[in-house]
Amino acid sequence: MAKERFEKPTGTQDVLPGAVEKWQVVEAKARELCRRFNYREIRTPLFEHTGLFERGVGETTDIVEGEMYTFKDKGDRDLALRPEGTAGVVRAYVQNKLYGEPDVSKLYYIGPMFRYERPQAGRYRQFHQFGIEAFGAVDPAIDAEVISLGYQFYIDLGLKDVRVELNSVGNAPSRAAYREKLLDFLRPMRESLCSDCQRRMERNPLRVLDCKVDQDKFGGAPSILDSLDEECTEHFAKVKGHLDVMGVEYSINPRLVRGLDYYTHTAFEYKAAGIGSIDTVGGGGRYNGLVEEIGGPDQPGIGFGIGLERILLILENQGVTLEAAKPLDVYFVALGESADLEITKQLFRLRSLGFSAERDYLGRKMKAQMKSADRMSARYTAILGEDELNNGVIALKSMETGEQRTVKLDELAQALIQN
Amino acid sequence: MAKERFEKPTGTQDVLPGAVEKWQVVEAKARELCRRFNYREIRTPLFEHTGLFERGVGETTDIVEGEMYTFKDKGDRDLALRPEGTAGVVRAYVQNKLYGEPDVSKLYYIGPMFRYERPQAGRYRQFHQFGIEAFGAVDPAIDAEVISLGYQFYIDLGLKDVRVELNSVGNAPSRAAYREKLLDFLRPMRESLCSDCQRRMERNPLRVLDCKVDQDKFGGAPSILDSLDEECTEHFAKVKGHLDVMGVEYSINPRLVRGLDYYTHTAFEYKAAGIGSIDTVGGGGRYNGLVEEIGGPDQPGIGFGIGLERILLILENQGVTLEAAKPLDVYFVALGESADLEITKQLFRLRSLGFSAERDYLGRKMKAQMKSADRMSARYTAILGEDELNNGVIALKSMETGEQRTVKLDELAQALIQN
Repeated sequence: MAKERFEKPTGTQDVLPGAVEKWQVVEAKARELCRRFNYREIRTPLFEHTGLFERGVGETTDIVEGEMYTFKDKGDRDLALRPEGTAGVVRAYVQNKLYGEPDVSKLYYIGPMFRYERPQAGRYRQFHQFGIEAFGAVDPAIDAEVISLGYQFYIDLGLKDVRVELNSVGNAPSRAAYREKLLDFLRPMRESLCSDCQRRMERNPLRVLDCKVDQDKFGGAPSILDSLDEECTEHFAKVKGHLDVMGVEYSINPRLVRGLDYYTHTAFEYKAAGIGSIDTVGGGGRYNGLVEEIGGPDQPGIGFGIGLERILLILENQGVTLEAAKPLDVYFVALGESADLEITKQLFRLRSLGFSAERDYLGRKMKAQMKSADRMSARYTAILGEDELNNGVIALKSMETGEQRTVKLDELAQALIQN
Repeated sequence: MAKERFEKPTGTQDVLPGAVEKWQVVEAKARELCRRFNYREIRTPLFEHTGLFERGVGETTDIVEGEMYTFKDKGDRDLALRPEGTAGVVRAYVQNKLYGEPDVSKLYYIGPMFRYERPQAGRYRQFHQFGIEAFGAVDPAIDAEVISLGYQFYIDLGLKDVRVELNSVGNAPSRAAYREKLLDFLRPMRESLCSDCQRRMERNPLRVLDCKVDQDKFGGAPSILDSLDEECTEHFAKVKGHLDVMGVEYSINPRLVRGLDYYTHTAFEYKAAGIGSIDTVGGGGRYNGLVEEIGGPDQPGIGFGIGLERILLILENQGVTLEAAKPLDVYFVALGESADLEITKQLFRLRSLGFSAERDYLGRKMKAQMKSADRMSARYTAILGEDELNNGVIALKSMETGEQRTVKLDELAQALIQN
């Protein structure tokens, strides 16, 4: 009887050899960049108490309202798979009292996030983000540093035409002033707006400007930059000054807003040319109210989150190839059973010395074994038959030049190094 | 009003800077080892259909009966966070038809697993495993390779007194013969055994020998090795022969069994000296029936799973220190506001060139900035005041020797390389 077959859950993916190497490169580049910028990794649990996300992401957001994977554990706790990275990091910063340390906490994370969304190209229910968070400093230099790290990440990956869009959403009084001006502008056109916009006008008017449907109606909307007070304006000017000396290219987009009250000052997004259109590939901002919102002390923070699936898709669309898998150093070809144990011995020794080495496990003929060596892009094949074994030697063949020579078995490692 | 504070879910952990570097080292060593042994990474989703684990791990196991995190998604699917790594990899091997490839599929994974267990030292509800799986070969050379890779992993990490315990559970006919002999031995003592043992006698008598409570009663139990048929005995002898030539130390433990029907031939565990006692730090075996059980073709497999939390705990108990965080190359000390932008510029340039570099973001005095440089083990501090700025130079101080010299701003990178 044929057994039931199983499939991966809808919206998830298997990353197989051949594709996984791209992920390894992207992650290694993120880690290396963080080392240079002195950000250190933090790993928080993949699930948290649901209340944390209601508070930290916002109860009225799409994410918390409809996209979270929530469940009860066997101890009846309300838990949720993390839908984004910042809330958990802020929780860990508070719970572990990292705010008590003398230096600014500069943290990064790379890992899976979970949202129940409609699957589409580059969008999965389990997706992966690289993010950084810096806590404890209001200095505009760190706003610019955060922006520049993400910018450099895209550059290092070879992504073309990356742009930074930049804005300031100011502090709470500036935002309140802007809110009134914006509502004055929106009220006369209320009936002509989509239902999403009408709802947002009540709860969160700044986010109305995000609407894709009604975008063309907002040409004459007031700019939040005109509502910034002196402190906010100065902060924003300094952020731009730091970006200028680093050579980070950006454009100002006064429509770029983040809805929730704990977002302050700097807001930014990264854009890149995707499939014909310009896609947002990441974004972030300053959140001076979030640490306190989550029960911590009054400490400022700023960070970004970058979706990795989206980047890999756009890199592919742009024709950018990431470093491939490293070739194999040597493939052992065994002729006859007597060579079997000697090959195990040589294989283990070479691997212990740092070489990548492989053999046949399927009892195949020489020709099939040589084909395997080819498929694995082996630099060398090492061929051991009964004659060689009796003489304590092995035939070493360069797969590049085709040249073959005989070397002593106990000088094999040396021969591989010299060539 | 003070806001509600949030804590990480019971049984999970935050891995913070200072501790996370150990994880990075352990993972990097696993990846490097897999490169040398020609295993390639596979990443499967962190949740799967619950039925997969019922089938692949076993419906009557402790894991599936009581320890899984199960939930329904918004599409009413029964899902579970993966409690172990093998089932998902086998599912991916089948679904992606990797069995159609000409070479043996040699795969590895590193990642989180989830089990609702009582938290204790080194045991968490979100824990992490490094595992490998090799599909498609029955050659005893690959059994030995799999065992040797895990062994080498512990050696590379510096774990002391690692031992391999080895057994063969044979094929189905051998195991059926043994089952009868074992039941003949157990029946007379049935009443004296613990309730777990009594239950296991019905369902899975081989696992009775695992019991910690009744261990001292099993001295005279028959050995499964005496029930192996010729094919099984030969396979086992060859596995030992390959291990011998590699110098992998092992001892035979005929009590080492794996309960489920799809386990065949080789079974093994890794043991290390923990806190006074000998702990199992990992284990695996051959599972020639599992791929078919999960709806795939009749393809053999073998693999291991190694718990990383356990290893880190034992390394600590054994006093083994893993490589620490890399020191910072240079810390910039700014004196006065005029140096601010120049430091941002220098910082970004050095980071782009591959140096790790840091600055102050808190407007602190020179002395406090020098202390920061010390805490971060900076190799150099680069001090920029108004005088230096006007002359286009910077003061470079070696934190090791205390020596200080003046270098041109545009020759700073060069100066850092030369020293």
